Amino acid sequence: MARSVSAIRDAVARGADLVVLPELVTAGYVFASVEEARSTAISAADPLFNRWAAEIAQSPGGDGLVVGGFCELGEDGHLYNSAAVVNRDGVLSVYRKTHLWDREKLFFKPGSESPPVITTDAGRIGVVICYDLEFPEITRGLALRGAELVVCCTNWPLVPRPEGEHPPEVIIAMAAARTNRMFIACCDRSGLERGQAWTEGTTIIDASGWILATAEHASASAEVDLAQARVKTLTPLADAITDRRPELYGDVVSC
Amino acid sequence: MARSVSAIRDAVARGADLVVLPELVTAGYVFASVEEARSTAISAADPLFNRWAAEIAQSPGGDGLVVGGFCELGEDGHLYNSAAVVNRDGVLSVYRKTHLWDREKLFFKPGSESPPVITTDAGRIGVVICYDLEFPEITRGLALRGAELVVCCTNWPLVPRPEGEHPPEVIIAMAAARTNRMFIACCDRSGLERGQAWTEGTTIIDASGWILATAEHASASAEVDLAQARVKTLTPLADAITDRRPELYGDVVSC
Repeated sequence: MARSVSAIRDAVARGADLVVLPELVTAGYVFASVEEARSTAISAADPLFNRWAAEIAQSPGGDGLVVGGFCELGEDGHLYNSAAVVNRDGVLSVYRKTHLWDREKLFFKPGSESPPVITTDAGRIGVVICYDLEFPEITRGLALRGAELVVCCTNWPLVPRPEGEHPPEVIIAMAAARTNRMFIACCDRSGLERGQAWTEGTTIIDASGWILATAEHASASAEVDLAQARVKTLTPLADAITDRRPELYGDVVSC
Repeated sequence: MARSVSAIRDAVARGADLVVLPELVTAGYVFASVEEARSTAISAADPLFNRWAAEIAQSPGGDGLVVGGFCELGEDGHLYNSAAVVNRDGVLSVYRKTHLWDREKLFFKPGSESPPVITTDAGRIGVVICYDLEFPEITRGLALRGAELVVCCTNWPLVPRPEGEHPPEVIIAMAAARTNRMFIACCDRSGLERGQAWTEGTTIIDASGWILATAEHASASAEVDLAQARVKTLTPLADAITDRRPELYGDVVSC
């Protein structure tokens, strides 16, 4: 928790208006038991988020945003793998991960609400967590609801890949950025946790799907103009959104 | 047309059971006028497809399939950017491109039917044409309808990309293959047509999203076991298809 606060402070000192932290940044990921997961859980009213708010209040425009993952103890007593969206006034929104990966299903209840789109002075920010990104319906839905930048708080377990290739999750993010003409910023873990190696795949992707910045052991940063994501025209006669044929996409919701 | 027949013959001689040809292989792509496009149009009853059938009848198992693009004169008098699916008995299916790219809108009527999934002895084959692939609803829909291999007949206009990156359409195909755990085989154009450079992006992608084979000026080939695409489990507790949350995907059809 202390490191999350200092990471926000450092990013703001370097001029950041939007800071993205990994998934479950307050809790760690590799839980041994439900009891251990529960012992790390906090509510959205936790004072930690006031500290995040105090740090982001120092952002250049004063209207910055932090998005970071936490292990949430819901008012219903269930645990959620959540992301808090925090501005200088406190918690604006909590998103509960809707697609739980692997053993997360043993610890967490899946969220029942679609990922949010938050309106800021800089543009509209969508929020997903890790495995959510691998469901193209989710990224498309965010674009259709106006997201210009999707932030992804993640812990990507390292998996094999051919030499010279990006991590598979980055390839999926690049495709989602390009097909939806929106920016995507993924903040991943680094190092090892209880023997689990992380991908160190932190990447910022532009609205054409190309990589603007990556990080291996530290942070990645980029300056982006979200207005570029409001332009969906590809040529005078082609448009990534209006060329869709929703009347043909019924399988996606009925299957 | 003659080259399409000899390309099938060559591929079959090298052991191919499935041959994929580019988009509009009978017609060329860069039309100067509607009249010129119309002058290249053929119907699905054209004798050309009997020649394709005769060649694919020589495939190792005798049960091979050719999928190739053609400029179709419909029985309604309209032109379609279509793909014919041909086996030894003739035309099994005609798919009319549903997402028309750029100036194609000046020449063609868009198809009104979703891409087909063809059942063969080797597995289930989905068919798309070029720009269709950039709509993740289409590839997801094919996977949900059982496609194990999606073939894409294409003419990808060459676009700039950062050094070391795959063509953007290949990245989109890799992501679609991995998120759906299915194979994708794209047959692109090479060279120049009336000043239009093609991407030469012919690529065969496995069900993990990695590249099995590419070609620059000639064909690409790979031996694949489509049974791999019937396994959607990622871990004992994760599955690319059953982890979906269709109740949250309504935006994709309503927006």
